[in-house]
Amino acid sequence: MGIHAAWLPSEAFRALGARRVLVAGAGPIVETVWDEVTRACDRFGGAAYRSGLSAEVPAHLDLVLSTAGRCPGAGSASAASPTEGPAASPTEGFVLGRRAESTTVLADGAAGMLYGLFEIARRGESAFDPGLADERHDPALLLRVLDHWDNVDVHPVMGQVERGYSGGSIFWHQGRPHDDLTRVRSYARLLAACGINAITVNNVNVHLSETRLLTSRLDEVAAIAGIMRAYGVRVHLSVNFAAPVILGDLPTADPLEDTVRQWWAQTTERVFEAIPDFGGYLVKADSEGQPGPFTYGRGHDDGANMLAAALAPHDAVVRWRAFVYDHRQDWRDRSTDRARAAHDHFAPLDGRFHDNVIVQVKHGPMDFQTREPVSPVLSAMPATRLAVELQVTQEYTGQQKHVCYLAPMWSGVLAEVAGQVGALAAVSNVGSDEFWTGHPLAQANLYAAGRLAWDPHRGPVALLDEWIDLTFPSAPGPLRSILHDLMDESWRTYEQYTAPLGVGFMVRPGHHYGPDVDGYEYTPWGTYHFADRDGVGVDRTRTTGTGFAGQYPHDRYESVATCPDELLLFFHHVPYGHVLHSGVTVIQHIYDTHFAGAERVTAMRQRWRRAEGLVDPALYARVADRLDEQVRSAGEWRDQINTYFHRKSGVPDAHGRRIH
Amino acid sequence: MGIHAAWLPSEAFRALGARRVLVAGAGPIVETVWDEVTRACDRFGGAAYRSGLSAEVPAHLDLVLSTAGRCPGAGSASAASPTEGPAASPTEGFVLGRRAESTTVLADGAAGMLYGLFEIARRGESAFDPGLADERHDPALLLRVLDHWDNVDVHPVMGQVERGYSGGSIFWHQGRPHDDLTRVRSYARLLAACGINAITVNNVNVHLSETRLLTSRLDEVAAIAGIMRAYGVRVHLSVNFAAPVILGDLPTADPLEDTVRQWWAQTTERVFEAIPDFGGYLVKADSEGQPGPFTYGRGHDDGANMLAAALAPHDAVVRWRAFVYDHRQDWRDRSTDRARAAHDHFAPLDGRFHDNVIVQVKHGPMDFQTREPVSPVLSAMPATRLAVELQVTQEYTGQQKHVCYLAPMWSGVLAEVAGQVGALAAVSNVGSDEFWTGHPLAQANLYAAGRLAWDPHRGPVALLDEWIDLTFPSAPGPLRSILHDLMDESWRTYEQYTAPLGVGFMVRPGHHYGPDVDGYEYTPWGTYHFADRDGVGVDRTRTTGTGFAGQYPHDRYESVATCPDELLLFFHHVPYGHVLHSGVTVIQHIYDTHFAGAERVTAMRQRWRRAEGLVDPALYARVADRLDEQVRSAGEWRDQINTYFHRKSGVPDAHGRRIH
Repeated sequence: MGIHAAWLPSEAFRALGARRVLVAGAGPIVETVWDEVTRACDRFGGAAYRSGLSAEVPAHLDLVLSTAGRCPGAGSASAASPTEGPAASPTEGFVLGRRAESTTVLADGAAGMLYGLFEIARRGESAFDPGLADERHDPALLLRVLDHWDNVDVHPVMGQVERGYSGGSIFWHQGRPHDDLTRVRSYARLLAACGINAITVNNVNVHLSETRLLTSRLDEVAAIAGIMRAYGVRVHLSVNFAAPVILGDLPTADPLEDTVRQWWAQTTERVFEAIPDFGGYLVKADSEGQPGPFTYGRGHDDGANMLAAALAPHDAVVRWRAFVYDHRQDWRDRSTDRARAAHDHFAPLDGRFHDNVIVQVKHGPMDFQTREPVSPVLSAMPATRLAVELQVTQEYTGQQKHVCYLAPMWSGVLAEVAGQVGALAAVSNVGSDEFWTGHPLAQANLYAAGRLAWDPHRGPVALLDEWIDLTFPSAPGPLRSILHDLMDESWRTYEQYTAPLGVGFMVRPGHHYGPDVDGYEYTPWGTYHFADRDGVGVDRTRTTGTGFAGQYPHDRYESVATCPDELLLFFHHVPYGHVLHSGVTVIQHIYDTHFAGAERVTAMRQRWRRAEGLVDPALYARVADRLDEQVRSAGEWRDQINTYFHRKSGVPDAHGRRIH
Repeated sequence: MGIHAAWLPSEAFRALGARRVLVAGAGPIVETVWDEVTRACDRFGGAAYRSGLSAEVPAHLDLVLSTAGRCPGAGSASAASPTEGPAASPTEGFVLGRRAESTTVLADGAAGMLYGLFEIARRGESAFDPGLADERHDPALLLRVLDHWDNVDVHPVMGQVERGYSGGSIFWHQGRPHDDLTRVRSYARLLAACGINAITVNNVNVHLSETRLLTSRLDEVAAIAGIMRAYGVRVHLSVNFAAPVILGDLPTADPLEDTVRQWWAQTTERVFEAIPDFGGYLVKADSEGQPGPFTYGRGHDDGANMLAAALAPHDAVVRWRAFVYDHRQDWRDRSTDRARAAHDHFAPLDGRFHDNVIVQVKHGPMDFQTREPVSPVLSAMPATRLAVELQVTQEYTGQQKHVCYLAPMWSGVLAEVAGQVGALAAVSNVGSDEFWTGHPLAQANLYAAGRLAWDPHRGPVALLDEWIDLTFPSAPGPLRSILHDLMDESWRTYEQYTAPLGVGFMVRPGHHYGPDVDGYEYTPWGTYHFADRDGVGVDRTRTTGTGFAGQYPHDRYESVATCPDELLLFFHHVPYGHVLHSGVTVIQHIYDTHFAGAERVTAMRQRWRRAEGLVDPALYARVADRLDEQVRSAGEWRDQINTYFHRKSGVPDAHGRRIH
């Protein structure tokens, strides 16, 4: 087979392609729409017309796509709050409705027309329902960016894509750009169809070859940007804060030095000469060994504002990551709490960042664990533009070997941060794999991330079904229900058989796959559970713990009485006999969920076997193989976790099940 | 500085070099002796004479070195027991004594003359004591081989030298032999001076490039052999059992297939054409993923005997490693015991190996832990030639960052296996480092391994002092005593602050440095401690455990009453409150030894500071740096082990010391 069509199989364009369609407007993205429409009509027997260009336009049209839709007051851009700063060009919204017996997309601009086209594709026949009422569509978040952690070179330990579980980079191969960028165009199309409008092409850990993408290898970025542009996707670059020293032969990268500021200004000008719609810089500074302003006694605001100044003449942003903590902690020192770090570093800087700086905050205070509270930084910086960062690549959630549909988690996060963030950044899970994401069902995570950035109110279950219907358009009812059952609760299932009650980080150090309860317990990474023979969990209360709970504007986490069960061990150290709100003890909860989770995975594998013959055999086989591994791994998790806590607590399972 | 002189500083030849010395004999090794003697005399003002070659030989000589020493009944070779099989040429022994007011070395052959020369160097002035009585010197073990785990290429994880802590290989660099092999000659000289008579040039895990050393890259081995030969050191090669398939394009490596046997015979003939004194093959087969006869339904005897047949026309051996176990064990399956594996595999094969097969057995049943019982295989194969394998490279004993003088351990092993083994194989600890062994004091381990192979009855403390006196010939008393104090008890100190009571393997997986109590607890490697809230240790008894204790011809380990404390947890699972023969409980022993061990290391660092100015500054600094790391690491071991067992047992330290 070739590369999998994901949520854009040709079938998705049947309803549209069988009709008479008019495209009205001009410009490169309108050309993209025109190309999509003509190909669909060629395939399905419809007819495409171009306003002012086609010789004869029939009196009756089934669908009109037009950029004439902008009207006063429309578009979220014009209603941007102060914290959202300068908006992206307000061309993304559109009104879908009926005019003179035609379905119409009246778009604010070319990008809106493209999004309207994909909305029509998603709706299929129902888009042509004569009773269709007018609906205005605007993205909730103006910047919806996918961050690639791709490297140009293959790292001896991390591979080419850091935390990538889907093969190599789709941009680079053997240290050079891919000769054929056809795949990048297919990718751009998929991104636009789920609502993503920007990508960062390289890893936030910027190694030497990747540092050069800013200067001597800029043509490689420009080539990607040229392809992405046709689908309304702007390109961003992760930059090395020490670039003036590494690339510019300057003796310093001090953000307050004039020579440094000039270097960035000039370098940035050259970037815009090559890529006029360049989106901006992404920076991981003073974090896990990356260089940053601390070296020069400067703050994160100094560093970010310097880059912001270089970008200011253009409509572009610097995203500055708040993922800053001490990764050389002493496990014996219980006063340091990694969870506190981002808030400690960044909350005091609120109001000190330029308008085109976005502080990018991981959704939880630690690092993309299966269950974390929402980062308190996201409600602590009202005078700063913020992005929330999600990890679509399943680093701690099964590495695309396990089915783990993450939209329910993200949906909860987005509900909590609504109105506080103006951007969503998602760490990509795609690679050179024929299914894009290694596990074919992991495509749903990428799809959902884009769609939630456009509309966070859309429910994760509805999004799942939307993805299933698009990806498997000719799916009979049984397949649809198998897929739904497999995926719907898969995140909670994963949570059940892995680290319990929000405690996190019970994974093998380094690769982070599979269980190792004490793997991070005595390390410098700040990731502890403090399990002893009496109890487990981290006391992060204000009164007796590290004080992290006090970083929230509410008191929900401070008391065991109000802390939700699923976060109990994140905030409290409790005895194994502590009774949860659910009515069972902590230790019995650990046993119960681990047995139940692993059983559920076995049932998932059984369920999938009934999909044989209902899907493409290669896809069937890939999912079946991965489910075998998931069953094995879930059993390993169940047994290690249960054995560990049984050995430690001495408490037998109330139901007498086998603990090794 | 250049490369460190180790135990052969020029000073070692002062007594000899200041005298009149006659060398009588012929052949390449005699030329080496002649070269050593003339250089010493040139330096220290003596005079060297050559029997039959020098024009005038004075009437009175101080030292006569002669190959005329062989006499009937002399030499252990002639007294070789049946289990020792064909002996190495009996040319290594010599008689040291006085004849006509000269000190004389009457050697059985050229090699004996060389060993006699180094014996004279070791003795210094006392070698010329007029009262010197005749002493016959013969090596206890005929094969004294140093196994290099060097690779031609650099492995992405293991580096160039597997478990090497002293830089790169001295043989290969960047995938090719070193241009200048001067260093290899210095190395050969050091080996001969401590009694080693063979080396294996490459890793027992034979990767692709190294497989080719047998054929297309044989010239690289021949070049090393050419240098080693001058010092009586023969070269062996680790071979890949699948070589006929990989190199010979045969469809099989089945040891009973004629084509395979012919391939090995022909290939081996070509080896001897290039290296007439080639020593033999070393094989790791059906172990940790290496190929072997199991693939073809054949036994270890079939595999070894096939190679033995190829080597039989020559005076050469195949060493076949007994390190065979299931490395894909399930930690939940308590019936499988890795400690049993070598005995289970090999004891039934006793008597089935050809005369020129040596079964090479690691000294303990597991894998070079700080404390293990002696392998029961070594007393279970009376009709088989056996080698005991020691690990001079400090994989599990501090990786040449920690001072850990291992001779006391080896000495105990050799005492237990006396008369049962005919060969000693030691895994090398040298590399391209300027001090040869990374930690300068780790040289003593290499020296002691060779010396113990020659004479296992020599005490480890005496050997330590011998090494100190040779390596630091102008050492004032204080330095000598500092070195002695630092090293003498260092193995027991290391044992104190690391894994307690013989339990082993509480190290970080992969690199094996530093503590991780549960690091191997839930892995497939068969390395468990089964610690729970009540107790710790592995039940290996016949009556209730895995039965490993029953592999010994005695019952010492079966009962807690007779099992020595230091091996208690290797053989028994006991409660933390179990009282040791020493009178303290297991848990209190853990606390006590860990506090004491770490304290002792701090004292060692203090002691070393008084050596400043008494040794070469570079050597001083290197040792000081490593002691800093040893202090840090010992503290980390102390705290992790104590915390782990305190959390699990809940038992407080009787002396109220700080446990985190």
